[in-house]
Amino acid sequence: METIKTRKTIRKYSQREVSDQLLERLLEEAERTPTMGNLQLYSVVVTRSKEGKKALAPAHFNQPMVEEAPVVLTICADFRRTTVWADNRKATPGYDNFLSFINAATDALLYTQTFCNLAEAEGLGTCFLGTTVYMPQLIIDTLHLPRLVFPVATITLGWPDESPALSDRLPLRAIIHHEHFEDYTPEKINDFYADKEALEENCHFIEINQKETLAQVFTDLRYTKKDNEAMSRGMLDALKAQGFLE
Amino acid sequence: METIKTRKTIRKYSQREVSDQLLERLLEEAERTPTMGNLQLYSVVVTRSKEGKKALAPAHFNQPMVEEAPVVLTICADFRRTTVWADNRKATPGYDNFLSFINAATDALLYTQTFCNLAEAEGLGTCFLGTTVYMPQLIIDTLHLPRLVFPVATITLGWPDESPALSDRLPLRAIIHHEHFEDYTPEKINDFYADKEALEENCHFIEINQKETLAQVFTDLRYTKKDNEAMSRGMLDALKAQGFLE
Repeated sequence: METIKTRKTIRKYSQREVSDQLLERLLEEAERTPTMGNLQLYSVVVTRSKEGKKALAPAHFNQPMVEEAPVVLTICADFRRTTVWADNRKATPGYDNFLSFINAATDALLYTQTFCNLAEAEGLGTCFLGTTVYMPQLIIDTLHLPRLVFPVATITLGWPDESPALSDRLPLRAIIHHEHFEDYTPEKINDFYADKEALEENCHFIEINQKETLAQVFTDLRYTKKDNEAMSRGMLDALKAQGFLE
Repeated sequence: METIKTRKTIRKYSQREVSDQLLERLLEEAERTPTMGNLQLYSVVVTRSKEGKKALAPAHFNQPMVEEAPVVLTICADFRRTTVWADNRKATPGYDNFLSFINAATDALLYTQTFCNLAEAEGLGTCFLGTTVYMPQLIIDTLHLPRLVFPVATITLGWPDESPALSDRLPLRAIIHHEHFEDYTPEKINDFYADKEALEENCHFIEINQKETLAQVFTDLRYTKKDNEAMSRGMLDALKAQGFLE
């Protein structure tokens, strides 16, 4: 786990192949991650074909790594396997509800992160695509995901062909609360964000976007209320369509 | 990451102290986990006091490890820090919606799993408490979680005082789909679950619960439709109360 200290998101990959053998070993080792009742409420769609990656790209705003990475993994919350198992074993499953989605999404995300930790320890580069939950219906249609299966994470994977700088993080005191949650005061906020706001790249970011503060770059451009609300509706609709919400 | 191959959930802990220094190092190293826009949409409430653990126990069905573990970590989806930051920087945040909850929960769960992998590589034992999302309002009240903060994971942590057997996992072919999702047929289900259903402990489980199949133990006793539906309502209500759903 020493690799965690220097891990960086990798978006450019070399031509070197990621063998099936290596990929399967890592996917199998990641199965040690604990899950709800040991039910393993997840599944992984492996996309290696040119056409498959091309079909997925629009769901990820056509970010180039989707088509350029040798491997794209779409990790899904999957209560279908357990449900079909129950249906075939004289049992009556009751997993078409919101809590079951949260349980399966949790299993899927924990599994995803162990996989990434393992892949990076092996020298592979990964990029976690947060876009997976922006237009989930597109991914559902593209990958033919049936009822009670829902995409929650996408990983592009390959051997690194870039070596980006280590990105900044908030100081640990910004993350931790002792015994009870202590709310954020203006003084604490100044303390927590001082280093981030002083970074040259972030100052540059404010300037080229003609904003006054770094926070405005996030609220006005990158993650806007309007987009979030529209995508919230899309996600809730997709959850209904997949059987996880009444 | 060699430790992943033999990791087991640990529910009994020795008297040996988990030092603040070690805990903070691991929590800080886990911060390398990628997050949405590098916003780190999570926070961690560290519970070490006897009273604090006692207060949390009912939310986790009084499972003994909550009071017995030296450390209990409640990991929260936290869009509050970013929101207060924006409010203090002439920016207009728009994170009181469902997508933002999913984004923050994703950050929190990925962070949680890196932390667990690091802790286990160090020899510590962890138990992931899925109960966190069963009665979230109880945890919200106990830890004083404000608007836009929501508990998504709880970890009990300590030095192991037991050495349980490695638990079974589904074969890799049960998890992976190539290019498109291939639906589960009765034949595949028989194949995927054969080993699990043949395990002596699972046969015993069926017998003592006077059930006909292992799946029935899950659907009729452990994770019932009735409980799932009631807890779904509770979770949606709590999401509304915390400002993540209209």
